[in-house]
Amino acid sequence: MMSTESIATSLEGVRRRVKPAIEAELQRYVNAAEEAGLAEMQHMLRFHLGWEGPGAGDKATGKRIRPLLVLLSCEAAGGAWQAALPAAAAVELLHNFSLIHDDIQDNSRTRRGRPTLWAQWGVAQAINAGDALFALAHVALEDLEDAVYPQAAKLLPRVSLELTQGQYLDLAYEDKPDLDASAYWPMVRGKTAVLLSACTRLGALVAGARDAQLSEYAHFGEKLGLAFQVYDDLLGIWGDEALTGKSAHSDLVSGKKSLPVLYALGRSEEFARRWNNGKIAAEEVADLAALLEAAGARQYVEGEARRLTKEALEALERAQPAAEATAALRELAEELVTREA
Amino acid sequence: MMSTESIATSLEGVRRRVKPAIEAELQRYVNAAEEAGLAEMQHMLRFHLGWEGPGAGDKATGKRIRPLLVLLSCEAAGGAWQAALPAAAAVELLHNFSLIHDDIQDNSRTRRGRPTLWAQWGVAQAINAGDALFALAHVALEDLEDAVYPQAAKLLPRVSLELTQGQYLDLAYEDKPDLDASAYWPMVRGKTAVLLSACTRLGALVAGARDAQLSEYAHFGEKLGLAFQVYDDLLGIWGDEALTGKSAHSDLVSGKKSLPVLYALGRSEEFARRWNNGKIAAEEVADLAALLEAAGARQYVEGEARRLTKEALEALERAQPAAEATAALRELAEELVTREA
Repeated sequence: MMSTESIATSLEGVRRRVKPAIEAELQRYVNAAEEAGLAEMQHMLRFHLGWEGPGAGDKATGKRIRPLLVLLSCEAAGGAWQAALPAAAAVELLHNFSLIHDDIQDNSRTRRGRPTLWAQWGVAQAINAGDALFALAHVALEDLEDAVYPQAAKLLPRVSLELTQGQYLDLAYEDKPDLDASAYWPMVRGKTAVLLSACTRLGALVAGARDAQLSEYAHFGEKLGLAFQVYDDLLGIWGDEALTGKSAHSDLVSGKKSLPVLYALGRSEEFARRWNNGKIAAEEVADLAALLEAAGARQYVEGEARRLTKEALEALERAQPAAEATAALRELAEELVTREA
Repeated sequence: MMSTESIATSLEGVRRRVKPAIEAELQRYVNAAEEAGLAEMQHMLRFHLGWEGPGAGDKATGKRIRPLLVLLSCEAAGGAWQAALPAAAAVELLHNFSLIHDDIQDNSRTRRGRPTLWAQWGVAQAINAGDALFALAHVALEDLEDAVYPQAAKLLPRVSLELTQGQYLDLAYEDKPDLDASAYWPMVRGKTAVLLSACTRLGALVAGARDAQLSEYAHFGEKLGLAFQVYDDLLGIWGDEALTGKSAHSDLVSGKKSLPVLYALGRSEEFARRWNNGKIAAEEVADLAALLEAAGARQYVEGEARRLTKEALEALERAQPAAEATAALRELAEELVTREA
C-alpha cells in the first residue's frame, strides 16, 4: 500500500526520502517497454537517465529538480505527494527528451562528465532515443487519477510545443547579430520557464487545487524558472568555474546568447564589435567579462534574478501553501538562485 | 454549424470532399502557434506539410491516407466523420513528425520531389520542427469530445513509443548481417502497422464503438498496415520504377532491409554473399532481383500481401461496418495493395 507520510520540512530530508521514489517511478515507465530485441535501446535510455554505464549514479542522474517541484507543490497544495509521482516522472522524462536533442543540436559531446547519446551511439539513434522519452513522458501521465488526467494530458503537449518554440529561437539567434535583451525572454520562457510552471501547476492540480490557486502555483513555477535561467547565465560568466583563469567553461567561449551578452549587445558598441568579430578565446574571457560589467550587464542581470525570485515567492505566498512543504519549497527556490555551480 | 452529411460511397468522391476539411483541420493546429518571432519555424512546418514554398500543392501534401482511414472508420462505425477531424489531424501530424526525423536518420535529401527539412534548414532546426509536430499531434486531440478524449490521449503516446521502437530496429538492422524474415515483423509493426491500427481504432472510438468492435477496427488497421508495407517492399524491387533498366530507385540500391531481402538472406547463400559484400550498383539490380525470385522471395512476399489484405478485410467484416462508408474503406484497402507506385 501507498504510504501517505508527508515529505519533510528540510530540503535535504526531502531529497533523501523522495529521490528513490522518483527513480523507481521513472524506471517503471522506461523499463515497461523491455523486449529482447530492444535491449540496446533501453540501455541508451537508462544510460542517459544516469542508471547504467560508466559513471552511473547520483551525479549522472542530476538533481531531479523538476520532479521535486511537482511533489513539493502537491504537498504544499494539500495533497499526498505520492499521487503526483506519475506527473513528476512525466516532467523529468520530457526534460530529458529535450536534453538529448539539445546535445545533438549544440554539438555537445559530454554531459555531466559522460558522453552524450549522439557521441556514443550516433545522431540517428540519439534522435530516436529522445523521441522515445518524449513519448514516455506522455505515457507516464496515464497513471494519474481520472479526475485530473484530462487536464494534465492537455497541459503537457502545450508545454512541449512551447519548448520547441524556445529552442527554435535559441537556434535561430546563433545567426542573428542585432539582438538585445528583449529577445531573451520569449526564448527562456519556452526553454525553461514553461516546464517549471507546468511542474508547480501539475503538483497543485493533483492536490485538487483549482482556478486562482492553480494559477498562482503556475506563476510561482514560471517566475522561478526565469530566475533559475537568469542566475544560470550569471554563473556562466561570473561563476567560479567560468571566470577562473583562462576558462573554456565560460558562456563567452561557447558563444551562448545569455542575458548579460544580449543586454550588452544593445548597449555597448565596444562589446558588440568584439562579440560579432568571431569566436571568443579562453584568454579573452576576463577582459570581455569586464566589458560586460562596465556596460552594466552584471548589475542588470543580478537585479533581474532578485526581482524574479521575489515575484516567484510572492506568487507562492498568494497560493496559501500548507506550512510543512512550504519551507522545503522556499529552500529549493533559494537554492536555485544562490547555488555556486 | 458543423455539417453532418455523410462522406460518400466512392473513394474518389470521398477524397474530393474530405481533403479540404483535413487540410483545414491540420492548418488550424499548425497555425495556432503563429507569432512574429516564429514565422520561419511556422514556414518550415507548412513547407513540410506541402502548403508553402516551391512545389506546394496536392503532390506535396501526399494522399493523407491516415486521416482518411480515421474519418472513414468513424463513419463505418456509425459516427459523423466531422467529429473525428481532431483525431485525423493528430495521426497525420504524428506521421509527419516521423517523416522529418526519418529523413535526417536516413540522410535523405528529397521527399516527394522537394528538399527535406534538414537539407534546407539544417539538422538542428529540422529535429526541432519534427519535435514541434510531435507535440502538435498530441495538442490536436484536445478538441475531441470529453467522452472519448482520455482514451484517445492514452492511445497516441503508446503509438508514438512503438514508432520509436520500430525505428530503433530499422536503424539497428543496418549493421546486422545475420537477419531473416522473422526480424521484419516487429520492425514494420512499429514503423507502420501500429499507426494505421490507431487510425481505424480512433475513428471507431469517436463513433462510440466499444470493446469487441473497437478491437476489430484496430485489427483491420493493423493488418492493413502490414499489407501496405509488404506491398511497398514488393514495389521497391519489382515495381515499374524500381526494375526498369539500371534503376537507382530500387530498394536493392538503397540497401533497405525489406521483406524480400530478409526472406532471401535466410534462404539463399548466393544472394546473402552478394548482399553482404557491399553496396549494390544500379547495373546489378536486374540480376539481384532474379536471384531473389529464384529464392522464392517474390512468391513469398506476394502471398503475404494477399494473406494480410484478406485478414484485414475479414476483421473489417467482423466489425459489422455501416454499408455506406464500407465501400470506400474497402476501396482504400484495395488501393493500398494494388497501386503501381
